[in-house]
Amino acid sequence: MSKKVFHELISLEEAKKKLFNSVRQRVSIPVEAEIVSVKTALGRITAEPVFAKFSSPYFHSAAMDGYAVRARNTFSATERQPVRLKIGVEAHWIETGDPLPDGFDAVIPVEDVSLRNGFIEIYASVPPYNDVRPIGEDIVATELIIPESHVVRPADIGAILASGITEIKVRKKPVVGVIPTGSELVDAEKLKERMIKPPELIEYNSAVIGSLLIQAGALPKIYKIVKDEEEDIKNAILNAFEECDFVLVNAGSGYGKEDYTYKVVNKIGEIIINGVAIKPGKPFIAGFINNKPVLGIPGYPVSAFLCFDLFVKPLIELYLGTSIEREEKLKGILSRQISSNIGVDEFLRVKVGRVEDKYIVTPVGRGAGLLMSVVRADGYIVVPRGSEGFSQGSEIIVNLWRTKQDIDNTVVCIGSHDNTLDILYNFLRKRYPYVTLSSAHVGSMGGLVAIKKGEAHIAGTHLLDETTGEYNIPFIKRLMPDKKVVLINLVYRIQGFIVKKGNPKDIKGFEDLCREDVVFINRQAGSGTRLLLDKHLRELGISPTKIKGYERDEYTHMGVASAVLTGRADVGLGILAAAQALDLDFIPVAEERYDILIPKDFIELDTIQAVLKIIREDDEFKTTVESLGGYNVRDMGKVIYENI
Amino acid sequence: MSKKVFHELISLEEAKKKLFNSVRQRVSIPVEAEIVSVKTALGRITAEPVFAKFSSPYFHSAAMDGYAVRARNTFSATERQPVRLKIGVEAHWIETGDPLPDGFDAVIPVEDVSLRNGFIEIYASVPPYNDVRPIGEDIVATELIIPESHVVRPADIGAILASGITEIKVRKKPVVGVIPTGSELVDAEKLKERMIKPPELIEYNSAVIGSLLIQAGALPKIYKIVKDEEEDIKNAILNAFEECDFVLVNAGSGYGKEDYTYKVVNKIGEIIINGVAIKPGKPFIAGFINNKPVLGIPGYPVSAFLCFDLFVKPLIELYLGTSIEREEKLKGILSRQISSNIGVDEFLRVKVGRVEDKYIVTPVGRGAGLLMSVVRADGYIVVPRGSEGFSQGSEIIVNLWRTKQDIDNTVVCIGSHDNTLDILYNFLRKRYPYVTLSSAHVGSMGGLVAIKKGEAHIAGTHLLDETTGEYNIPFIKRLMPDKKVVLINLVYRIQGFIVKKGNPKDIKGFEDLCREDVVFINRQAGSGTRLLLDKHLRELGISPTKIKGYERDEYTHMGVASAVLTGRADVGLGILAAAQALDLDFIPVAEERYDILIPKDFIELDTIQAVLKIIREDDEFKTTVESLGGYNVRDMGKVIYENI
Repeated sequence: MSKKVFHELISLEEAKKKLFNSVRQRVSIPVEAEIVSVKTALGRITAEPVFAKFSSPYFHSAAMDGYAVRARNTFSATERQPVRLKIGVEAHWIETGDPLPDGFDAVIPVEDVSLRNGFIEIYASVPPYNDVRPIGEDIVATELIIPESHVVRPADIGAILASGITEIKVRKKPVVGVIPTGSELVDAEKLKERMIKPPELIEYNSAVIGSLLIQAGALPKIYKIVKDEEEDIKNAILNAFEECDFVLVNAGSGYGKEDYTYKVVNKIGEIIINGVAIKPGKPFIAGFINNKPVLGIPGYPVSAFLCFDLFVKPLIELYLGTSIEREEKLKGILSRQISSNIGVDEFLRVKVGRVEDKYIVTPVGRGAGLLMSVVRADGYIVVPRGSEGFSQGSEIIVNLWRTKQDIDNTVVCIGSHDNTLDILYNFLRKRYPYVTLSSAHVGSMGGLVAIKKGEAHIAGTHLLDETTGEYNIPFIKRLMPDKKVVLINLVYRIQGFIVKKGNPKDIKGFEDLCREDVVFINRQAGSGTRLLLDKHLRELGISPTKIKGYERDEYTHMGVASAVLTGRADVGLGILAAAQALDLDFIPVAEERYDILIPKDFIELDTIQAVLKIIREDDEFKTTVESLGGYNVRDMGKVIYENI
Repeated sequence: MSKKVFHELISLEEAKKKLFNSVRQRVSIPVEAEIVSVKTALGRITAEPVFAKFSSPYFHSAAMDGYAVRARNTFSATERQPVRLKIGVEAHWIETGDPLPDGFDAVIPVEDVSLRNGFIEIYASVPPYNDVRPIGEDIVATELIIPESHVVRPADIGAILASGITEIKVRKKPVVGVIPTGSELVDAEKLKERMIKPPELIEYNSAVIGSLLIQAGALPKIYKIVKDEEEDIKNAILNAFEECDFVLVNAGSGYGKEDYTYKVVNKIGEIIINGVAIKPGKPFIAGFINNKPVLGIPGYPVSAFLCFDLFVKPLIELYLGTSIEREEKLKGILSRQISSNIGVDEFLRVKVGRVEDKYIVTPVGRGAGLLMSVVRADGYIVVPRGSEGFSQGSEIIVNLWRTKQDIDNTVVCIGSHDNTLDILYNFLRKRYPYVTLSSAHVGSMGGLVAIKKGEAHIAGTHLLDETTGEYNIPFIKRLMPDKKVVLINLVYRIQGFIVKKGNPKDIKGFEDLCREDVVFINRQAGSGTRLLLDKHLRELGISPTKIKGYERDEYTHMGVASAVLTGRADVGLGILAAAQALDLDFIPVAEERYDILIPKDFIELDTIQAVLKIIREDDEFKTTVESLGGYNVRDMGKVIYENI
């Protein structure tokens, strides 16, 4: 059993100060420069200013096709008394870009002259430099083209080359080693040869960190997975330091019996940070080996992502002397209350939706292991330690992971989740690549509340009213009698029994749930599925007390499926997709209506029109939904209800 | 002599419609997909949705180090009546990430139990799934990870790998050929071997276009420069089509005698666009050869840049099915009137400055040959054909080439230009990498007017009052008696005589200007330099009529230097930098004060504080300015004047 030792947590500001100051003291920054060809300098950061070597143009040149003349020879020309200049003596044919002959100072475009026996006739005087690009019109030799610490753009490349410079000094990309550690980790490529089995885990953090490093302007070196053995980790770190500017060790920064990063760095180097009061990301460690930094990045993907943003990206910027990319920030309105976490700065992933003119900010899962919470999130907010949290409706700054424009073009969909929404999202991207659908799964009732509060554009809902047997409409009428909304059908959804592969208990209908040898797993009270079960039991006159397991409930379709998979139950009611996800069998028993609710004010938005066009006119979308199995699309897009 | 034929101009909308519709009819888009390793998919565009193959976690696993138990065995536990569970039978040691043993459904963290002779004692009940990461907590098998037409980000890579997928289908990058044409063009690399001489020009457009192609998600193939010979151009295009999806021919799209692109495409393929009513960019052409597009991009760099934005980038997006990058737009206030151009949509480069809460938009040079106007611009605006233009103060949409945040951190400097401003810009980037200085050169008086109108943060000025002999202050008092401003010295600047290398006329002072064998070139009336000359002539009692060339004037220091270089004059008054730029000699004759004017309201801005810190405290800055020659820094940073 491991001896539990706690980190010596310091605050985020203290940790940043300590890390960056130590680096400034020990490492020569910004990094050395290297010389690169201007042609390949796109996106690199200049290590010194670039001054023009030549002017551009570097000779007076014609701006038009025509005749080079001396302006003073034209001064008396008028329509009535044209001036005649001898071709080859007082006037020379010249094409755009050609140098002006010595002593000539103007060009008359060919369409403004007449030709007469070896002379040109001109009808108006021209000033000096008429249709001439003078020396230095674009670039003057010695002038500054771009300064130091500048990210080179395409037009910069052109101007630098035009000014006669072919090579520039840019900052070297820092080489950053990434060492994944963990005896249970398996390289994803192994999946091509064989399946994995518990406790094996696919190693993916190094690919995420590698991509983040590329985006931040560093050169990643991803090393092979190292087993949780002190000697192996030590050797991997020492080996990486031979070719890297600094090294990230992924996981093993905690204090479990297999968390060796701390021990190794402490033995062969010096630890300067040993835990930070942030959540997630607490077990972050930092130290030096031979004056090169080594950072221990926590293993949970969200912690790793956050520690990258907080420590690794600024460290790269320190090495480079500037940042490649600027973060976008946005001010939004919090859709629900957030409590603070004593003693730690908490970083919460959020979704941001633009509804009318407000940006609505909604926190998503807090778990540090939830990579999908990063994939689905739009950015993060900070809940500072010692604060009282934030109340609903407060203004809050969001650090964006997407652009504001992306967010403006996002359909915010809050409510019950269904797989057809994923398909809809995909068709939106396919047909209207600028439109995104962001869906938050909070259940049907949560969706209706979001619509009522103006926090969502659409809500997916399948609420069965027990007394009327009607879907959704009674709830809408009750909850928002005055709000102008349209209820549109998306699909009818088959609910059924989720049973073990091969249906060993031979379950066919609701009556089988009462059998002595059958254990049931239920959904929580108030869920659409529970309402559906109760309705059928009532109609069939079956008393719930006869069903073994009726009192044990799960909160999601997947929870039910997983109970069946692991043998805690023989059967549960749920949707086909959940059965398919865990490779279980499915016996269809009932159909329910799944609608989407949209406030009338939003119907004319381009983004909502795109949604409606797909569900109403796109046959491929219908076919794709049908091919999932478990759905009927007969009323897809039909208006079920609208209030006047 | 070339026969002048005019393009058959069509409108921009018509041209876009024609091009993109023709491509849709002839080319299969989006392009084919290719399979890539997920690990290398950063920034690629998905060609199909990615659905999870495995759940993550794919087994119920411990979220903490501790003991796996059956939750129901803990239900009666209290502080007073702890429950005891036998280790190895009812409780198993488990570490974070380990799979739960069969039949176990909860984890009790190690710090919450006591050990007693092979038993654990627990003091509170735990619910099922306590500290367990259930199957599918992060990713449920079959769920959508990312849709089609999605640009792959680092977190996406992690989630796709975690869901058991190692390869995905992404859209192939279109291969785009770039053929630079022009007999006068020389590859920049040649400069390593020898100097160039007129009419040779350095070829840089292909490097600019290549970089733009990379940014837009295409694979550029840059071909060698082709001479203006019909056969050579034909062969180059046919050769490029063997390996490219489409081809860009740079220049030669006009109708001059050496503009062969049109002729070649017309002969071996089909022209569909032959000139567009836009400015710049008019001579854009488009056609097909064997159903592959070929575009003729105009040679002037700004035209090429704009045609890329208008035609090439959307074409790549058509091939890819989406765009890699979204453009940012911003609403600003026009600082001066803009007239429209009959019959063409005009695209004007602009600078954008945030002054107080307004974004001030100022057009920069209209010339299509001015590459630096792109380097220095922040974006462009469109002046539609048939419109009456825009009046000063109107709201206008800017298509940004930089981020809004960059613009927010930019010091807007309008007024007289001096090379020390370039050095200042460079030190700002070096010391404060987030701050940028944007300087527009409109002369001292223009700068004062900009400050008065609230369009600039700082103005550079060196206006000599003839009556008092005082610099700047009389003008400020006259122009903005009530505005609270601070005038701070930047440098004293040496003006001098610009003469030919070796000073062949042996010019030493103002008296020499009257000599019979000396031809002078003047600056325009009202310029600071002209005021300075007149002051010295008056003091010395020299009549301007005695100076040959006093009546001929130039508008810039460079114009004066270029007149001396080309022999139109023997001497002119100007600054050292202009002489150095054209490798001329310089005889110092007078000193003038160059100050910067800042409104008091802006002094406390972080960006302005950065400027002041550099000019007041940065010794390296002072030394660098002094090393330019021609400057005295004795009062640098000193407050010269402030109104109360």
